[in-house]
Amino acid sequence: MSHDQGRSPYTGEPAGPPVPHATDAEVDAAGAAAAAAAPGLAALPPEERARLLESVAAALEDARGELVRLADSETGLGEARLGTELTRTRVQLELFAAVVRDGAFHEAVVDHADPAAQPAPRPDLRRMLVPIGPVAVFSASNFPFAFSVAGGDTASALAAGCPVVVKAHSGHPGLSRRTAEVVASAGLPEGAFAVLHGTAAGRRLVQHPAIRAAGFTGSLGGGRALFDLANARPDPIPFYGELGSLNPAVVTPGALAALGPAVVSGFVGSFTLGSGQFCTKPGLLFLPKGHGLDDELAGAVGRAALGPLLNARIRQGYDDVAAALSAVDGVRAIVAPRPVTEPGFRVAPMLLAVSADDLAGRPNELLEECFGPAALVVEYGSPGELAAALDVLPGALTATVHADPATEADLVRDLLDRAAARAGRVVFGGWPTGVAVSWAQQHGGPWPATTNALHTSVGATGIRRWLRPVTFQDVPDAFLPEVLQEANPLGVPRRVDGVQRSHM
Amino acid sequence: MSHDQGRSPYTGEPAGPPVPHATDAEVDAAGAAAAAAAPGLAALPPEERARLLESVAAALEDARGELVRLADSETGLGEARLGTELTRTRVQLELFAAVVRDGAFHEAVVDHADPAAQPAPRPDLRRMLVPIGPVAVFSASNFPFAFSVAGGDTASALAAGCPVVVKAHSGHPGLSRRTAEVVASAGLPEGAFAVLHGTAAGRRLVQHPAIRAAGFTGSLGGGRALFDLANARPDPIPFYGELGSLNPAVVTPGALAALGPAVVSGFVGSFTLGSGQFCTKPGLLFLPKGHGLDDELAGAVGRAALGPLLNARIRQGYDDVAAALSAVDGVRAIVAPRPVTEPGFRVAPMLLAVSADDLAGRPNELLEECFGPAALVVEYGSPGELAAALDVLPGALTATVHADPATEADLVRDLLDRAAARAGRVVFGGWPTGVAVSWAQQHGGPWPATTNALHTSVGATGIRRWLRPVTFQDVPDAFLPEVLQEANPLGVPRRVDGVQRSHM
Repeated sequence: MSHDQGRSPYTGEPAGPPVPHATDAEVDAAGAAAAAAAPGLAALPPEERARLLESVAAALEDARGELVRLADSETGLGEARLGTELTRTRVQLELFAAVVRDGAFHEAVVDHADPAAQPAPRPDLRRMLVPIGPVAVFSASNFPFAFSVAGGDTASALAAGCPVVVKAHSGHPGLSRRTAEVVASAGLPEGAFAVLHGTAAGRRLVQHPAIRAAGFTGSLGGGRALFDLANARPDPIPFYGELGSLNPAVVTPGALAALGPAVVSGFVGSFTLGSGQFCTKPGLLFLPKGHGLDDELAGAVGRAALGPLLNARIRQGYDDVAAALSAVDGVRAIVAPRPVTEPGFRVAPMLLAVSADDLAGRPNELLEECFGPAALVVEYGSPGELAAALDVLPGALTATVHADPATEADLVRDLLDRAAARAGRVVFGGWPTGVAVSWAQQHGGPWPATTNALHTSVGATGIRRWLRPVTFQDVPDAFLPEVLQEANPLGVPRRVDGVQRSHM
Repeated sequence: MSHDQGRSPYTGEPAGPPVPHATDAEVDAAGAAAAAAAPGLAALPPEERARLLESVAAALEDARGELVRLADSETGLGEARLGTELTRTRVQLELFAAVVRDGAFHEAVVDHADPAAQPAPRPDLRRMLVPIGPVAVFSASNFPFAFSVAGGDTASALAAGCPVVVKAHSGHPGLSRRTAEVVASAGLPEGAFAVLHGTAAGRRLVQHPAIRAAGFTGSLGGGRALFDLANARPDPIPFYGELGSLNPAVVTPGALAALGPAVVSGFVGSFTLGSGQFCTKPGLLFLPKGHGLDDELAGAVGRAALGPLLNARIRQGYDDVAAALSAVDGVRAIVAPRPVTEPGFRVAPMLLAVSADDLAGRPNELLEECFGPAALVVEYGSPGELAAALDVLPGALTATVHADPATEADLVRDLLDRAAARAGRVVFGGWPTGVAVSWAQQHGGPWPATTNALHTSVGATGIRRWLRPVTFQDVPDAFLPEVLQEANPLGVPRRVDGVQRSHM
């Protein structure tokens, strides 16, 4: 296939025009243009860089109606949800404009010369983070705005001062191409932004000499393949992949006693949100044995409003995993999988249950991520049984605890410790879907949640992925970057001779 | 071979007792003990963690005489230099004690709940960095204290709250074993620190399920092999390797005119320091054509006091690279390589010269790192010739500029930009050896200088390698880590609702 063709999830029929794949020469040209644009983008004053991000945000807003309709035609996620996602995408760009203006992201440190330093006199040393260079962004299917062409990876990389070459997702080629045009209209410098289509183009891109880092949101298989290519380069580059997560949630006996059935009232809404196609979908719900919530849960699943899945491949994967999980020894159905005969990529939701002992005994069979509106209830008898089952879980983006602090303080502490050891975000008394875009957000976690647990793809600190430190030793003040000049003309927060100073 | 045997570089004869290699079972036991120790070490209050680091520092000081003598017997680096290095190792531990007490390394961020947030109301979010888990440290041959058993990787990992398993370097097994005993006497928690010997043990260690990250200082070949193993794991881990660097230094016509021969007075001392076995050795010196400094340089090389190289393999490598470089078309000798007949691992220094055009034309032949007292002068005729030669250089730990800001402002800017684009530390008017241990230091750089240009193995921010972020959402205050509690009982610097606050 030499082009991407969008399809309506509502009908399965082609949607929009085919979009041709990039040739090798086009990939190379985008890489070369990004390399050429890098010094100029890095040298842009922070205020100008912030305004560029805001221009992109404004351009997306101006095209809102058209983009949302186009997105729905290719993804079937619904105009309401897609409108919210476009708002979020604008908010992301605006947050990174604020991050750039704030200046703390430079992590500036000044150590004045110290002739008395041990073991030897110390020169003047000044350290800051600088852009790493051109970044490849591999966009996701399930967030066609917020994790796609103009999504968080693109916003944070441009904020860092890095040119971006996006490999568009094949699921929404028309939207990707149109979004690229909208972004281009915002006045980014020549070569600072490009969008390419095609799997082969993506593989070439992650190996291109000009590319200095890559961001990815998608499947474990696809992410691992690109991660391996990035590491096998003669000059390996950082590859930040967000791959997959089961997002366990635990309800304790105390929470069940205190809240009754209401303790799970948000769960079904969370695991079926976006038809269960969220990275933060709670795929595992640990409940005390004899919880008596089957009817409550089944009723809520029955009332859930579900759209179709994104594409035929995801639908097929859902059906396969659903069948495999249902067939595992000891698994019972609270809501059984059932065939769907409607056109397009619709599926029926599914809720299975298994004992914690069985989960601990058969983790490989039971811990496969099922992308779509499915979840597994894990029933535990004792704290020891719960702990043993939690111990077999892989790393996750999130881990959720519902417990009663008043009566279960020790258990709460133990569960929060276990959650923090395995996940990048620990949610108390809520549900993990809905990832706020803010300074304190963390969207990442130990493998296989991501390829690199040190970083995040959502929130202000996502910019750190695209920056590397440089220390300037004894460089005359006039020749230092402004961030490091003695007078601190940009007023950025700095650590000076060991003491952190806030904004001046 | 089932043991490591130290050898005196002065004589080539065995020095000290053989030290047995760790068995697979011993590696597994160290990994398991580290995993078991991790939660306790992470939970230690910062003041206690700081005191542990200071106890290790004090224990090293108490054993100074014995350790320095032992180090010299196995490395031949000389007691004066080794004494200074021991001081530096103590200073590193003390710096990380200060980093832990300071608390900014947690990068704490608090976002209070915001019901008006777009695109949806925001919960209370609090983010901090937590220890990544047990760390493997692969120690270096050339810094038997500062980059070895109790060196910077170990100090920064313990400071982060991570247990450490060191793979000792085969070049100083007796010192490594004795240092391990000294460290153990400082009262670290059970399982928080172990030292293993043997290449196979190191390979097993970097693949051990308990190990969550690794640090390495050594050769490109050895580092790449371990990097590849770390990435090929079912659950890849961050591998921070410092591999090799040519550390280019440029002298401009203006600097030569202003300073005359004095412009290179520190160069020979820098490239022969530690017998040229420093990661930051300036291996390339760019001089204007017709510099007329051959006699000056040759004289300084003749006066340089050189010890033996560290071991027979390094000596053989030096001789091989020296022969290969000397034979490249267009290379002339300022100080020619010559055979040495003394016992042990002594070699003669060497200084070659080549034109910038030849370097740009034959980078693969001329840009091999020569570990030992060798350097290459690169003679350029025009700024364009200089730029073309600089463009073929790989990433480096350092890049040095000697220029005259008064008469060459544009050239200075251009050279500093080029230096910052390729190196982790930019030195003006000095020489790169001597890496101060401080808050603003950066010891890292683009591949092949390191495997990950985002980080440093020297200076306060080295701790960032062993930490990962976790965000706590709506967790009741009493159950939050102290760093994130509303009252900020530890008084750490935090960003609150988007505003950076300094120490309280």
